[in-house]
Amino acid sequence: MAATNTTGTRALINPRPGIFALALAAVLFLSVPASRADEGMYPLSEIGKLNLAAHGLKLTAADIFDPGKGGLVDAIVRVGGCTGSFVSPEGLIITNHHCAFGIVQQASTPDRDYITDGFFAPDGRAELPAPGLTIRITDSYTDVSAEVLADLPDTMDYTARSEAISRRMKEIVARAEADHPGKRADVSEMFPGKSYLLFIYTYLRDVRAVYVPPRSVGEFGGETDNWVWPRHTGDFAFVRAYVGPDGSPADYSPDNVPYKPKRFLKVDPAGVEDGDNVFILGYPGRTYRHQSSSFLAYEEDVRMPYVADLYRWEISVMEALGDEDPAGAIKMSGRIKSLSNVMKNYTSKLQGMARLGLTAERAAEDSTLTAFIAADPALAARYGDMLDELERVYVSMRQDADLSLTLEYMNRSVVMLSVARQLLEASDEMLKPDIERRSPYMERNLRSTKTSLLRSLREYVEPADQRFLREFFLDASDLDVNHRIGAIDSRLGETNVEGAIDEFISAAYGSTRLTDSAFVANCFGMAPDSLSAIDDPFLKLAADLRPAYEAERSRSVERRGALTKLNGEYAEARELLLKKDFIPDANGTLRMTFGSIKGYTPADALHAEPITTIRGVIEKTTGREPFNTPAKIVELYGKKDYGRLASRKLRTLPVCLLYNLDTTGGNSGSPLLNAAGDLVGVNFDRAYGATINDFAWDESYSRSIAVDIRYVLWMTAKVAGANRIIGELGVGPVD
Amino acid sequence: MAATNTTGTRALINPRPGIFALALAAVLFLSVPASRADEGMYPLSEIGKLNLAAHGLKLTAADIFDPGKGGLVDAIVRVGGCTGSFVSPEGLIITNHHCAFGIVQQASTPDRDYITDGFFAPDGRAELPAPGLTIRITDSYTDVSAEVLADLPDTMDYTARSEAISRRMKEIVARAEADHPGKRADVSEMFPGKSYLLFIYTYLRDVRAVYVPPRSVGEFGGETDNWVWPRHTGDFAFVRAYVGPDGSPADYSPDNVPYKPKRFLKVDPAGVEDGDNVFILGYPGRTYRHQSSSFLAYEEDVRMPYVADLYRWEISVMEALGDEDPAGAIKMSGRIKSLSNVMKNYTSKLQGMARLGLTAERAAEDSTLTAFIAADPALAARYGDMLDELERVYVSMRQDADLSLTLEYMNRSVVMLSVARQLLEASDEMLKPDIERRSPYMERNLRSTKTSLLRSLREYVEPADQRFLREFFLDASDLDVNHRIGAIDSRLGETNVEGAIDEFISAAYGSTRLTDSAFVANCFGMAPDSLSAIDDPFLKLAADLRPAYEAERSRSVERRGALTKLNGEYAEARELLLKKDFIPDANGTLRMTFGSIKGYTPADALHAEPITTIRGVIEKTTGREPFNTPAKIVELYGKKDYGRLASRKLRTLPVCLLYNLDTTGGNSGSPLLNAAGDLVGVNFDRAYGATINDFAWDESYSRSIAVDIRYVLWMTAKVAGANRIIGELGVGPVD
Repeated sequence: MAATNTTGTRALINPRPGIFALALAAVLFLSVPASRADEGMYPLSEIGKLNLAAHGLKLTAADIFDPGKGGLVDAIVRVGGCTGSFVSPEGLIITNHHCAFGIVQQASTPDRDYITDGFFAPDGRAELPAPGLTIRITDSYTDVSAEVLADLPDTMDYTARSEAISRRMKEIVARAEADHPGKRADVSEMFPGKSYLLFIYTYLRDVRAVYVPPRSVGEFGGETDNWVWPRHTGDFAFVRAYVGPDGSPADYSPDNVPYKPKRFLKVDPAGVEDGDNVFILGYPGRTYRHQSSSFLAYEEDVRMPYVADLYRWEISVMEALGDEDPAGAIKMSGRIKSLSNVMKNYTSKLQGMARLGLTAERAAEDSTLTAFIAADPALAARYGDMLDELERVYVSMRQDADLSLTLEYMNRSVVMLSVARQLLEASDEMLKPDIERRSPYMERNLRSTKTSLLRSLREYVEPADQRFLREFFLDASDLDVNHRIGAIDSRLGETNVEGAIDEFISAAYGSTRLTDSAFVANCFGMAPDSLSAIDDPFLKLAADLRPAYEAERSRSVERRGALTKLNGEYAEARELLLKKDFIPDANGTLRMTFGSIKGYTPADALHAEPITTIRGVIEKTTGREPFNTPAKIVELYGKKDYGRLASRKLRTLPVCLLYNLDTTGGNSGSPLLNAAGDLVGVNFDRAYGATINDFAWDESYSRSIAVDIRYVLWMTAKVAGANRIIGELGVGPVD
Repeated sequence: MAATNTTGTRALINPRPGIFALALAAVLFLSVPASRADEGMYPLSEIGKLNLAAHGLKLTAADIFDPGKGGLVDAIVRVGGCTGSFVSPEGLIITNHHCAFGIVQQASTPDRDYITDGFFAPDGRAELPAPGLTIRITDSYTDVSAEVLADLPDTMDYTARSEAISRRMKEIVARAEADHPGKRADVSEMFPGKSYLLFIYTYLRDVRAVYVPPRSVGEFGGETDNWVWPRHTGDFAFVRAYVGPDGSPADYSPDNVPYKPKRFLKVDPAGVEDGDNVFILGYPGRTYRHQSSSFLAYEEDVRMPYVADLYRWEISVMEALGDEDPAGAIKMSGRIKSLSNVMKNYTSKLQGMARLGLTAERAAEDSTLTAFIAADPALAARYGDMLDELERVYVSMRQDADLSLTLEYMNRSVVMLSVARQLLEASDEMLKPDIERRSPYMERNLRSTKTSLLRSLREYVEPADQRFLREFFLDASDLDVNHRIGAIDSRLGETNVEGAIDEFISAAYGSTRLTDSAFVANCFGMAPDSLSAIDDPFLKLAADLRPAYEAERSRSVERRGALTKLNGEYAEARELLLKKDFIPDANGTLRMTFGSIKGYTPADALHAEPITTIRGVIEKTTGREPFNTPAKIVELYGKKDYGRLASRKLRTLPVCLLYNLDTTGGNSGSPLLNAAGDLVGVNFDRAYGATINDFAWDESYSRSIAVDIRYVLWMTAKVAGANRIIGELGVGPVD
């Protein structure tokens, strides 16, 4: 699916890079810097082992986290899929604009455009409720590895193993939630097949917007600047958590009162300068540092190019449709934004992997590992087949990739199909005992599953859905003879495939009722007999596709079982080879990472400084989105009116910060803390080129981005006049 | 003409920037750096006044140019529209790849692809002739201002004044060429209406390629990197000048011998480092530093946006046609490249002007100048009306802009029309006495006029020509009622304009013979009666359009007369105000500029180093044009095999250099010289953002780019194995 071609998605799988690119990668590999000194997203259990003073921090591990007592970590919460932190005794939370954007989006009307104008509540009663947004507080964790892994012999087949682990995790969660009424539990896999932690969380369900800056500040630079440094985005917002009058979690009510956190962060209006030590606490989502070269090669050759090309094409389709249909454009804007984010991330990763020869480097390491294992009979007995087995899994994934990617991304892309599939699945699953259901249909998750199903209908635009279905049907018609999808073949016939597709589209979209939210809500959880009595072309299609998707799921469960076991062994063997203890990959649990404010060299002869300034905002300003700065900012810049928020070193107002900390998606909204543990910024992005840190961290290119607290305070106090917040933060006057 | 819209060119004149942009410009203006310390393209006459030691140079003004004796300047020549310099006693010249590219383009065939492979002549006999390319050597200059300006009273009308100056310049040239047989003369206006110099030039007509690197090196980065720093382009080539056995200029003959220059430059293989002092001698084309705010506003609001939008659209049309027609794509490639170059230059200028508020700044200076003149009765008597008069000229240009730009760019864009117009014009002009003819049709210029006319047919692609004609006819049909073009209106009628255009196009392109080079060559210089007897739709159109073009020419002559006088006075008055002597604007005559190797800050938080390295070549390499590096370079990089050409400071091979010297178009190929006057690089471009130095030079943003002599020598010796050249340069072994 070429970037400029909106007519076809013929090449399902990109060819491998040519010989030349491989030779070039090999040449570049010679000069890859070897330093991996500051890598690390340390889980709570590791913080106590760190020598923080040696890393320039002025607090002890116990200040951050003292098992049984808590610490700074008690101020760190999860806000939806982001991180946030308490910054006042009254439940005030700072996070990113892009994490709180949904609140103002939902509340805006043509007459009351909080998206464009921003939102500030002059008093508590004016704070804006955010239905559906939750704040998650980590209460405690326990190691449950022994229970999860008890009696799983090596001889067990992979599918059985995978299902057994999954079932035990569910049982532990169910027991924990019974023991802790009102809480939620989660078992997180730290090292695959090796260690598992049970976390107990409190969820606060009444969250309200306090100050959200205008989109022209919070999203300054838009897609153009996304993943870019130097950056000038004011990506911050203030929200507040509320609880019932008795202090316990409650749904929104005007009678609710601000939550009193166990701990809140102190804000330091003096900020930080180039070279200062900093650290971050937050909830990074997923990294893949401990994976074999087979995994990297699959990602580089197969999955990421497929997804990047598909999304580039889907974005171009939606943008072209949006040009003709402004109302549709608004509905599709969120989806375009999220696909663009992934597309640019993968494009950057693919460029970075090619430039650094990452896969070739890991393959060389894997060869060393193979020799190391072969040289020791004990290791050979335990790990002798491991790398070959891993390779076998990925060979099989490559063989099936055209089918599995088509099925997966057809389901993600075609809303009518995914709605129908979820209705069928809900109908079946809800007949089972709760513990045996697939996770989205367990009682504890039903509400959010239904909410997100109905949200997908709010963003639905029929012409886009038709274009996507058409492409996937064409893709399906091109699949290898061993990978045919019967349910699609039977609808297309053997001659005039395009004509048959157009006929199906015309009939199916003309008659389906699945675009009707009330109808879909009513069908959700309906008994199988009643559901199958409904004559709907997409329910019928989904039912016919079920064998294909179930077969795909079986293959996937078996592979996951294999990879869980093999990746666990792979990590063990590598630890033995490298004589070090690995830090587990990010998995959405609370982590600490530290380092310093630091520039970098993005390309030959270019040096990027680690602190941007207000001058850059003005330089980029064109007066048009996404570089349309509010007049008040231009005016204050003209007067150099920065109060006491100018950097002492730069003698002007800082805007964003760059540092060599180890972050990934999920770290959005994480507090950036100075050596004393005071908040000096809010993390929101990584630099282009740094996204490959998901696969391999490197001091030379891994850089993350925060909005500087001085810009946050300046915007809040001088531009928005939101002095109520300044007072609540206790930072004193900033004028 | 929008970038992505290939269907219409409706908005002839862009609107002025909105209030917001003006306010922003005013804010930015406050922080524009005031330093103009190193501005200056010093003409020969000024070099003697410079204190070169104070600028870090280790040679005296007399070493560079001693009137009557010569100096380093004798090594500097003009190569076509570029600069070059002698680097051996055997007439070897170094210049840019893009200045010598035409030689290999003309000589290449599918079997012998010098464009892709590069060209190296292993011995003198193999050197490749370049028909049409000349080397111009400056013999002498004389101030002829008194003669040009004698007896032109202030009361004379502007048209008469303009014509009188033009006639006197022609007379002086004719007399000088009679006095110097075999030479060419030119009178150059140094300050408009103020000073004029007569230059005597020798032209060498036998030029041959010696070494031209592959396009993948000489054009590395292509349009993507054009005007960009950091740069990694090996934009150099070696050619040689030949003369007849008697030492005088001659057309190509195998009996010719290498030219022995009066002087040649020494090449220093040690190169320069960050901060080193350097200077350039060359032939900068045109700058506009001494112009009023009325001029800048016209350029910013009217002319440059019109041309940038038009060219962007024409490029998109040609690229789309080229996708369907590979042979046509090759024919159009030169035109696309040259339009792209202008389009990117103007786009950069417009961004820079908006960013720095240049026009507002000059308008503020003009207000100061007005007050300064008004305060002194003597000045008021002489200059009292000058700024108002200037403004009046530009107001009238704005009023006529839709018509004058349509006529000018229709003639530039539609090849059939411009061929027809030139045939008519040649026919009329050649009846006149030589001295009265328009310059292209004077005997001394006829040959090159005819050559370039026939070249335009070689690059002609009919569908593009039709698209362009169609657009300009549509534009013409939208012109204001006072600006109608009768010859077009009469062809389109009043209803169904588009249908009439299509009918005209179909008939005219179907029957014209002007696509036939032999026919056109035969018509060139034909008597008017014979020409008008030919029944050709484009000759007929051109004849009918003549009144419109002649009226436009009259307005233009009058304005030029006015501007020559008024700009002369404007410069005088500003010199009085600022108490300084201005350096005349660039005008294609020999100039010196000096400064140092120096990085800059292209944007907030970014610092660009002034020397790029081979690592950057490899980083940018994708294996596809325009980033397709020869395998030999990748191999030598892998081995770090740089001989003695690595920078001592950077410990790797430098590729390009950045410096704060004052250059413009025409400086392409100029030698970059170290403090001792030895060649250390070949100038070829400016950094994006630096292009506004055509209007106003500033130390903070004016930066030019050379290929480093160390990269030149490495490519020549190690990659091409052209050791014959290394020997001739006398730099000793470089391995």
